[in-house]
Amino acid sequence: MMRKIGLLGAGRIGQVHAKTISAHAGSTLFAVSDVVAENAKTLAAQYGASAMSSDDILAHPEIDAVLIATSTDTHSDLIEAASAAGKAVLCEKPVDLSLERARACLANTQESGQPIMIGFNRRFDPNFRAMKTALENGDIGRAELVNITSFDPAPPPVSYIKVSGGLFRDMMIHDFDMATFMMGAAPVEISAVGSSIVDPEIGAAGDVDTAVATLRYDDGRIAVIKNSRRAVYGYDQRVEVLGSGGLLQAQNMLENTVVKSTADGVSSAKPTYFFLERYMQAYAAEWSAFIAALENGTGMPATLEDGVLALAMAEAATRSQKAGRPVRLDEV
Amino acid sequence: MMRKIGLLGAGRIGQVHAKTISAHAGSTLFAVSDVVAENAKTLAAQYGASAMSSDDILAHPEIDAVLIATSTDTHSDLIEAASAAGKAVLCEKPVDLSLERARACLANTQESGQPIMIGFNRRFDPNFRAMKTALENGDIGRAELVNITSFDPAPPPVSYIKVSGGLFRDMMIHDFDMATFMMGAAPVEISAVGSSIVDPEIGAAGDVDTAVATLRYDDGRIAVIKNSRRAVYGYDQRVEVLGSGGLLQAQNMLENTVVKSTADGVSSAKPTYFFLERYMQAYAAEWSAFIAALENGTGMPATLEDGVLALAMAEAATRSQKAGRPVRLDEV
Amino acid sequence: MMRKIGLLGAGRIGQVHAKTISAHAGSTLFAVSDVVAENAKTLAAQYGASAMSSDDILAHPEIDAVLIATSTDTHSDLIEAASAAGKAVLCEKPVDLSLERARACLANTQESGQPIMIGFNRRFDPNFRAMKTALENGDIGRAELVNITSFDPAPPPVSYIKVSGGLFRDMMIHDFDMATFMMGAAPVEISAVGSSIVDPEIGAAGDVDTAVATLRYDDGRIAVIKNSRRAVYGYDQRVEVLGSGGLLQAQNMLENTVVKSTADGVSSAKPTYFFLERYMQAYAAEWSAFIAALENGTGMPATLEDGVLALAMAEAATRSQKAGRPVRLDEV
Amino acid sequence: MMRKIGLLGAGRIGQVHAKTISAHAGSTLFAVSDVVAENAKTLAAQYGASAMSSDDILAHPEIDAVLIATSTDTHSDLIEAASAAGKAVLCEKPVDLSLERARACLANTQESGQPIMIGFNRRFDPNFRAMKTALENGDIGRAELVNITSFDPAPPPVSYIKVSGGLFRDMMIHDFDMATFMMGAAPVEISAVGSSIVDPEIGAAGDVDTAVATLRYDDGRIAVIKNSRRAVYGYDQRVEVLGSGGLLQAQNMLENTVVKSTADGVSSAKPTYFFLERYMQAYAAEWSAFIAALENGTGMPATLEDGVLALAMAEAATRSQKAGRPVRLDEV
Repeated sequence: MMRKIGLLGAGRIGQVHAKTISAHAGSTLFAVSDVVAENAKTLAAQYGASAMSSDDILAHPEIDAVLIATSTDTHSDLIEAASAAGKAVLCEKPVDLSLERARACLANTQESGQPIMIGFNRRFDPNFRAMKTALENGDIGRAELVNITSFDPAPPPVSYIKVSGGLFRDMMIHDFDMATFMMGAAPVEISAVGSSIVDPEIGAAGDVDTAVATLRYDDGRIAVIKNSRRAVYGYDQRVEVLGSGGLLQAQNMLENTVVKSTADGVSSAKPTYFFLERYMQAYAAEWSAFIAALENGTGMPATLEDGVLALAMAEAATRSQKAGRPVRLDEV
Repeated sequence: MMRKIGLLGAGRIGQVHAKTISAHAGSTLFAVSDVVAENAKTLAAQYGASAMSSDDILAHPEIDAVLIATSTDTHSDLIEAASAAGKAVLCEKPVDLSLERARACLANTQESGQPIMIGFNRRFDPNFRAMKTALENGDIGRAELVNITSFDPAPPPVSYIKVSGGLFRDMMIHDFDMATFMMGAAPVEISAVGSSIVDPEIGAAGDVDTAVATLRYDDGRIAVIKNSRRAVYGYDQRVEVLGSGGLLQAQNMLENTVVKSTADGVSSAKPTYFFLERYMQAYAAEWSAFIAALENGTGMPATLEDGVLALAMAEAATRSQKAGRPVRLDEV
Repeated sequence: MMRKIGLLGAGRIGQVHAKTISAHAGSTLFAVSDVVAENAKTLAAQYGASAMSSDDILAHPEIDAVLIATSTDTHSDLIEAASAAGKAVLCEKPVDLSLERARACLANTQESGQPIMIGFNRRFDPNFRAMKTALENGDIGRAELVNITSFDPAPPPVSYIKVSGGLFRDMMIHDFDMATFMMGAAPVEISAVGSSIVDPEIGAAGDVDTAVATLRYDDGRIAVIKNSRRAVYGYDQRVEVLGSGGLLQAQNMLENTVVKSTADGVSSAKPTYFFLERYMQAYAAEWSAFIAALENGTGMPATLEDGVLALAMAEAATRSQKAGRPVRLDEV
Repeated sequence: MMRKIGLLGAGRIGQVHAKTISAHAGSTLFAVSDVVAENAKTLAAQYGASAMSSDDILAHPEIDAVLIATSTDTHSDLIEAASAAGKAVLCEKPVDLSLERARACLANTQESGQPIMIGFNRRFDPNFRAMKTALENGDIGRAELVNITSFDPAPPPVSYIKVSGGLFRDMMIHDFDMATFMMGAAPVEISAVGSSIVDPEIGAAGDVDTAVATLRYDDGRIAVIKNSRRAVYGYDQRVEVLGSGGLLQAQNMLENTVVKSTADGVSSAKPTYFFLERYMQAYAAEWSAFIAALENGTGMPATLEDGVLALAMAEAATRSQKAGRPVRLDEV
């Protein structure tokens, strides 16, 4: 079956999804909307799709599913509207910057029965996926201590920082979901520290650019997440899991495999530069998983509940960092 | 400009090229031919192209270029016919199994002035390409000693071996071209040894499955190529260049970056399994380079002359292995 | 000059030191004491030294320096006595289990003017040393985020745990000093979590076997330390420092460099098993540094102050873990 | 039992052996000789041994074994004399520069029945040893294709080259023995090419500085050895064995494990600089193996026959390189 897809949002990430949707044998890009109508038109033309308004997409009887790649403040509304309109939904993270609103969205969409997936793309990275499979196979026994390193190559402009919801909701939210993915459970308490040592303007805007969060699970397990807005050598995306029977490590993907040895030393390529390079394969696999779940009627591999949980973790971490004390998940 | 492409041959490698041609912003798959008409039809349909006979493709006025992915024994004839018909050509290696015929093909196409590229895909692998760039930058001074490791995961059926032209023409020909690519020159003499220790049936068919060739250059430089038809851990494709100022190594690409440490040891993923997995990116880059050369009117990055040279090296190696003595390139 | 050394303690670590002292061109093992006189006699005989009581060693006019490798509860007393007796001192860590007693020891030895070094052997590991040198060279700018992984291969017997002072004072104390070594400063606050998931008996004994501590520095920098009493693949000792200009990583040392690729995957050797294997070179370098500092009259490369600081950090972490809140260094 | 050892030769490698002999629990350095009596005296004093003439060492009734570390031209004579005097012998490689003389030495020492070991130190390198063990365990099935990379960091002075016997006898002889060690058999034919591209003065002296030898075994197996007198990044000592069931690779040992990632790339430490650094552990293990073989009355782990075989291989390679044709072992 060839599913007809409506894409809401024609920005940078929308363009990635347009390509992925078109390349998949089970889906076709049917319509594109964007707040800037011209952008929708250009992207639609590239793939033989139609430019429409969001409302028309949601109302169109032939469209099976929508991919929401609009700005964060519209996510909850669009998820609700699309579900109500009987569309399957894949929505970019985060669900919302407001935990309350996200929880309402979850409540409001329960009845529709429409499948909703949140775009936690890293779950579909071939390396993290192989790690998860190894965990499920029991290759290292029970996961006990998770260690996530997640550094961006360079900080975004301060104008972006100001509307981002802060590092924990904007950046570490991916890592919170990764911890959930690896641990298979939600933590009970989060303790976070952070500071703005990369760029003092980020601090002036009330945010941090360097942060560490420690997650405590009710059975004694622990996860640590380290974030920095600046790793001058590229996008640093590594995950380690220590288990009762060993250690799993997913290392960075490098630009190439060439090693150069000279009198000055031995050098190799840098990690791939940023998320579009690193997670290119992940975006395709994410879409395949969404289509496969629709096809097979199985549960989504990253649910709206997962999205709300990650946001709750971000909320707890934000409070912990500000208050200088651990914050329990049931406080938020 | 959007170039219209005729694809001759709808087999396994033809299918790879069909995808690559379609995905490129400067080319469109216009027509497909195959000895089995049904195969052409199926592949053409997948990309909105037409199924035609080879003759019709060569005669079609709208077609700008052809990609020849037919069986080896048709390559020379098709290169000549396509050039005479005013088409640009990208032809899969080898040019021919007969060195004499390949040389005639080179002579017969000189006048046409049409650009001809031979599909030495490994030149476009991002790792070997990065290595070549480093050499050109002088990162390790002058290349003095090249070491090529090229092992297939498993031997082909003996029926294939019998029509393959032998290991040197069928398998090592890629490595001969790689030596030329890295050295930027042709050797003066080749010394080869070989045996059939992987599969005695290969020996019974008059071929070898394990071989080493040593290439001597007129300025004293040396290259070594090692081939085996069996590396049970996957496709082993590594190149090393020792230069006056250091060493360059292109290592294998692995299936993923996960490392597992247990009481039994530390383990990581295997190399990608075979050429379609390993050289997927290379095929796309090869096609881009072909289109770019047409676009810019620059020389092809792998010429018919390169194809004839690789075949001459294979011929010299074959004779050397059989005669048990070094064979000079000017003997063949 | 050949310095005559008195070794207090002939246990496992004492035996390592005996060998190192003897092998050094600037020192000779002159006398050995132990609570079990027989052990002192055996070890002394091996190196042509004399077995004596501790008192006799401290009183012996020919002895220049003592190495204290006795049980922890005797360290402070012996440091004071040896200093008072005019001996230079190298004492194994920790200074004491009691922070108060350690501080008194520091106060009581100020007047003697004798050089005192604490055996933070990891500072002399060639890998961490190379990392420190790179930091001092400014290779990665300013250190901003330190990440220490320190896992033992297997937990000690619970009987040991009971007298150990707990994981933070017994095991993580090395990592606290490593953080100080890399950061070149003391933190202002420590936040620690821990649990006993490796062995419930450790929990029953009031200790933890898995723990994470986060260290906050007054200028916003952060360090994270992860400890586990069990890594079934061997001793895991890695340090990472993210700086404004890059990342430094000291990886594990492996038993050998052999890589095996088979149909089952690619495998390599495990990390060296435990501290005697991993830090063999470090113990020799530590002793050389001690002798060199005596020779040159320069400051010790790991001082009694460093020992007291590490203990204060352990105290803060212990309290933080028990109280479930961050603890400031100036609280302890 | 504590064996008393006489060391013949107090040069650079003699000094390494003196240390190793002294450090071993089963041997003591009893006497040292050298053509420069002063050198013998200095070295002997360092270890509490006596300086003697070679004749006196061989005649001394208390000396159990001798280690011959004199200049190559004296090896055969000293091996014969020591055997005749009833001493066990460990002699540095090569046995002799003359294959004829080495064969005579073998014949002349048969009757004595004294154990004779040749110092092929690389057999005792922990990495190559682990590889050999894996081969013996059948980890990769039958060894089919051996690939040895052996590059020195910098060429020796031409004055040394002139008396060295040439690259094949002086440098590649180690690799010939390594091929024998890994293959467990002697080749039937060797084909070698070489040139002087590192230093034309080496060519003027009649030698080569870059060479490749291909070894053919009677059962079809093949080994390749690559030598260069110059690898500016350090001593490059790697061995690979492709077998029917996989690949074994022994990689270089690095100066440390630190990896540095900056905007310029990712860099790591260089290989250990030269043989004293790289094979320090191997020399100790070699001596242990010698003592253990004496202790247990088992065969030597590197025999005089091995020494003669390696020399025959060097002779065949030398002839092959000069004549430009393969040379059979039974020709030399």
